[in-house]
Amino acid sequence: MSKEITNLRNENSGMGRRRFINTAALAGLSVGVVGCNDKPAAQSSPAAAASAAAPAAAGSHATASVHLKPGELDTYYGLWSSGHTGDMRVLGMPSGRELLRIPCFVPDALVGWGITNESKQVMGTKPDGSLRYMVADTHHTHASYKDGNYDGRYAWINDKINARLARVRLDYFICDKITDLPNVQGFHGIFPDKADPVDPAINYTTRVFCGGEFAIPLPNNGADANKPEKYHSLFTCVDAESMEVRWQVLIDGNCDLVASSYDGKLAATNQYNTENGVHYEDMMSAERDACLFFNIARIEEAVKAGKFKTYGSSKVPVVDGTHEGNKDPNTALVAYVSVPKNPHGVNASPDAKYFICAGKLSPTATVIELAKVLDWFDGKLEKLDDSIVAEVELGLGPLHTAFDGRGNAYTTLFLDSQVVKWNVDAAIKFHAGDKNAKYVVDRIDVQYQPGHINGTQSETRFADGKYIAVGCKFSKDRFLPVGPLHPENEQIIDISGDKMVLVADHPVRSEPHDFVIFKRDLLKPKQVYELDDSPIAIKDPKESGVFRNGKKVTVKLTSQAPAFSLREFTLKKGDEVTLILTNLDKVEDLTHGFAIPKYNINFIVNPQETKSVTFIADQPGVFWAYCTHFCHALHLEMRSRMIVEG
Amino acid sequence: MSKEITNLRNENSGMGRRRFINTAALAGLSVGVVGCNDKPAAQSSPAAAASAAAPAAAGSHATASVHLKPGELDTYYGLWSSGHTGDMRVLGMPSGRELLRIPCFVPDALVGWGITNESKQVMGTKPDGSLRYMVADTHHTHASYKDGNYDGRYAWINDKINARLARVRLDYFICDKITDLPNVQGFHGIFPDKADPVDPAINYTTRVFCGGEFAIPLPNNGADANKPEKYHSLFTCVDAESMEVRWQVLIDGNCDLVASSYDGKLAATNQYNTENGVHYEDMMSAERDACLFFNIARIEEAVKAGKFKTYGSSKVPVVDGTHEGNKDPNTALVAYVSVPKNPHGVNASPDAKYFICAGKLSPTATVIELAKVLDWFDGKLEKLDDSIVAEVELGLGPLHTAFDGRGNAYTTLFLDSQVVKWNVDAAIKFHAGDKNAKYVVDRIDVQYQPGHINGTQSETRFADGKYIAVGCKFSKDRFLPVGPLHPENEQIIDISGDKMVLVADHPVRSEPHDFVIFKRDLLKPKQVYELDDSPIAIKDPKESGVFRNGKKVTVKLTSQAPAFSLREFTLKKGDEVTLILTNLDKVEDLTHGFAIPKYNINFIVNPQETKSVTFIADQPGVFWAYCTHFCHALHLEMRSRMIVEG
Repeated sequence: MSKEITNLRNENSGMGRRRFINTAALAGLSVGVVGCNDKPAAQSSPAAAASAAAPAAAGSHATASVHLKPGELDTYYGLWSSGHTGDMRVLGMPSGRELLRIPCFVPDALVGWGITNESKQVMGTKPDGSLRYMVADTHHTHASYKDGNYDGRYAWINDKINARLARVRLDYFICDKITDLPNVQGFHGIFPDKADPVDPAINYTTRVFCGGEFAIPLPNNGADANKPEKYHSLFTCVDAESMEVRWQVLIDGNCDLVASSYDGKLAATNQYNTENGVHYEDMMSAERDACLFFNIARIEEAVKAGKFKTYGSSKVPVVDGTHEGNKDPNTALVAYVSVPKNPHGVNASPDAKYFICAGKLSPTATVIELAKVLDWFDGKLEKLDDSIVAEVELGLGPLHTAFDGRGNAYTTLFLDSQVVKWNVDAAIKFHAGDKNAKYVVDRIDVQYQPGHINGTQSETRFADGKYIAVGCKFSKDRFLPVGPLHPENEQIIDISGDKMVLVADHPVRSEPHDFVIFKRDLLKPKQVYELDDSPIAIKDPKESGVFRNGKKVTVKLTSQAPAFSLREFTLKKGDEVTLILTNLDKVEDLTHGFAIPKYNINFIVNPQETKSVTFIADQPGVFWAYCTHFCHALHLEMRSRMIVEG
Repeated sequence: MSKEITNLRNENSGMGRRRFINTAALAGLSVGVVGCNDKPAAQSSPAAAASAAAPAAAGSHATASVHLKPGELDTYYGLWSSGHTGDMRVLGMPSGRELLRIPCFVPDALVGWGITNESKQVMGTKPDGSLRYMVADTHHTHASYKDGNYDGRYAWINDKINARLARVRLDYFICDKITDLPNVQGFHGIFPDKADPVDPAINYTTRVFCGGEFAIPLPNNGADANKPEKYHSLFTCVDAESMEVRWQVLIDGNCDLVASSYDGKLAATNQYNTENGVHYEDMMSAERDACLFFNIARIEEAVKAGKFKTYGSSKVPVVDGTHEGNKDPNTALVAYVSVPKNPHGVNASPDAKYFICAGKLSPTATVIELAKVLDWFDGKLEKLDDSIVAEVELGLGPLHTAFDGRGNAYTTLFLDSQVVKWNVDAAIKFHAGDKNAKYVVDRIDVQYQPGHINGTQSETRFADGKYIAVGCKFSKDRFLPVGPLHPENEQIIDISGDKMVLVADHPVRSEPHDFVIFKRDLLKPKQVYELDDSPIAIKDPKESGVFRNGKKVTVKLTSQAPAFSLREFTLKKGDEVTLILTNLDKVEDLTHGFAIPKYNINFIVNPQETKSVTFIADQPGVFWAYCTHFCHALHLEMRSRMIVEG
């Protein structure tokens, strides 16, 4: 298959090839796989061919605008996940320039994340004080909402490996909380809610929904490893403010991506493993999988009413969202809408009407009307699948969808290495029987194998249709060779006209998955900390010194360019030392660092920030603690001599 | 001072202001510093005023060329240090795009650097198997030479905090060796040699020179912390191939940056702390500091002759490079050329004739003629300082110098926030008495507080004068605000014409210091590993399995998209497991990842690469190991079920 992917891009991308692949390629998916069960699947529709458009040629009119002149500012922020690099990235758009990496789940040597006491408290430590985890796998990042737009308070990001949810404060651009999801493995999709399902006054985010991807025996203690019926996945709700887990829903099958409705009433997850298969061949055996809809108000009523279980040592209430427990629409907590084979991606349209699931192993997108899902929950729609208002062919390997606010959707085609622009209303008309409805508006080749896609303001009510970014998983020959590990290619496409125009390639460290892009005026970051942000701030250099209590020693230090308040300090071998450093410089951008050679310590203090580290002074000698963050013409001379007496 | 820095850029940058600052600003350097000793220093020359040029306005002719169109490749590679982020970065130039980060000294969650057995062996571990260090502070990166140009074999990078030197293979772009420098603290400058001083057949790099910045008592065991006469710094030579430490030189004062001559005979380091001061005020008391020249052939003869000491547990021979031991030029190993106050930076001109030291606390650059230094060593030059052929005023806070191969030098002015272009021959004439020699050719404002600078091919005999990159330590308002930690600003300037033209701002994660830029055809990277690169490669999926020897278990796995060779494997609680994974995919860019939830394991295997991890199976249950590096349409389904029986 890998060879096939490689070759696809070189071939003629006309519909003749696509049609051929539609009927034959899915068998090819298993080429080169040892011992797998070939289960060819074929799905085709005559429509896409008729409505296909030629790929757009790159025009020059748009190119200038994404290449900012020196000193020009971007007009949009982007928040990007980083995959197993483990941080959150902040980009300026449309330039695509990376402005910041926010450490969350994994250590960051620049900031001292994983080194300072404050960061270790957020990250979590073992009893011996070492970090619980040094790896993570972030996939999705989304920000808090108010009135259907971002409100600039928080963003969240997942760690798939260890089932953790991190929150980032968007004033200081720092991670302030990490929550473990109990009894979850492979925590994949996340989405904040956008309003309360019951209280109209709460028109902002108060919950974050989290999809558990890998079914495991509950509880997972080694006893039931070989009992398939014990394997389940959980859909989790975390409180946006306290970051406590509010509740979980036990489901059949698994969760993948997550979406939430603008009215707060529904959350959804696409499900690719309806089969509950444990080998990958089994996960592809069913022709249709599902998109699950969660009725938030009913779930919270059930929790209030005590209709829940708990698993293992977790106290989190778990309600029953299985097929068996949700047969009656009038009391159901969960609805299972069927969608084609192994879907990937569920996205909410900015008109608040639809969720769109992409097919992955089916060349289709499925459009589900939310009003009809609510009708089903109210007993007004007999067949749940009648909420599907379109299921149209787009091309091979459809994954994720963005929107322009003008009624068009943009879906990545992983196997075709294309983005297809299609009109949602036209797709609905086509599905209803109007075979003249040309829903495919445009196609553009991307380089190569695109995953996530997002547009400016696309995940809000205010999608503005200026640019989309496309996360291409393979870059192959688009950049200078740098050895076996290639960068990925984040491409930027101008969507302001009828034709999509590719305007930039950006190499990125693997591997951004999802991201959001929004107008810069939605954020009001702070550039300088408040001294009172830390309860242990050293507010005056005169408070500096070495304070001893037996073997416990506190060293209090301040920094003001180009010197630390203590030119030197003396410890005794074996002391348990807590060193507190407050940066008293108030000037924006005047950050200091503090490193101690051989003691595995380095961290930064931004203007007016306080940090601390705790260590055992186990090596006697002279250790030149020094400023590691260039601050001043005399930065190199900015040192403090730490003497550890033997 | 920080406020002064902030304000400087807003003021008129005419020479009137500069002259005023020249005589007054150094007192201002200590503004806001608690308890420091003000030691005003004044140095001025009437020359710079006469030869100053107006800042160049940004022209449009050059702008297009640095903004590559989608699919266009860069024409130069750049290797960048990353400061206390701890990695090496590979950039494409002139686009300024980051193509790769190569983990060296600190963990990297993407690659699994610090997680795999192979990376831990390079990084170094404690007896319990945990990493010795998770922080580092890289400053300088340089590549191996042949015939005065880069030969594409290796690059080296320093860790200042823990005095370590790392080597990067430029075929696979990976770090393969890390060497500890014994008895060194604050290892700052590095430079490979460019030829052997004796054997003309060795016209390539065989040594790497390393400057120790912080003087410490030798040995540093806590006994002599309060005896200043025991404090020394060491200049270290590491073998380029074996990465063993060859020898060290004990000097008076300290080392900072390092340079090497094209003929292999001389290495040099600038010295800012001739005073051997331990408080920063003392480090500025002398009006002149030094540039030290090391006579490589003589040092190696002395080592051969057994004229050395050793310190502490180190077996490395240390020769005497102090003033006291080097009074006779005919036998001296080291020559101390005096240069103005607290110099920063020493750079070799591409015509192989000169080393240039910048003043930092003096507004001057000092040009030292290498032939004259060699004359001194040969007893043919009476006064060593007569090797200084120019000492000319450039502006405030000169730090580093790049070259265009047309006789011009480009020096960063930290305090003036400028780059000054000056002609070396004209400077020599001016210094010799020709007051009409206009050595300053051009000035350009940069944004803001520039540190390192380098040009295309600048540190080779083949400097080509196309672009310079300037590492600006402060970006202030040049990018969208992202909280208190600002990116730095790597600016790109077109130097192909008479006037410098600023063509791009690039935000970068702190903090790149030094870098080199060279033509792309000098590197021939490999895109796919050889299976035989690893002695433990699993060359056939049929070799996969779980192999038990008591409680020691080896799990052998292969990957071929979209599956691992074992769909599941079973362990017992308490097993000591070594898991070996070979990626049998051969297609370029087809990388897989391997994560085990809750076990703190994730790493990647590039095409044909083998990695291993060792862990205790201490948690019973089902753990879905999965592919973390997007590889295929069925990537999400690519899992292996690890069952740990309780």
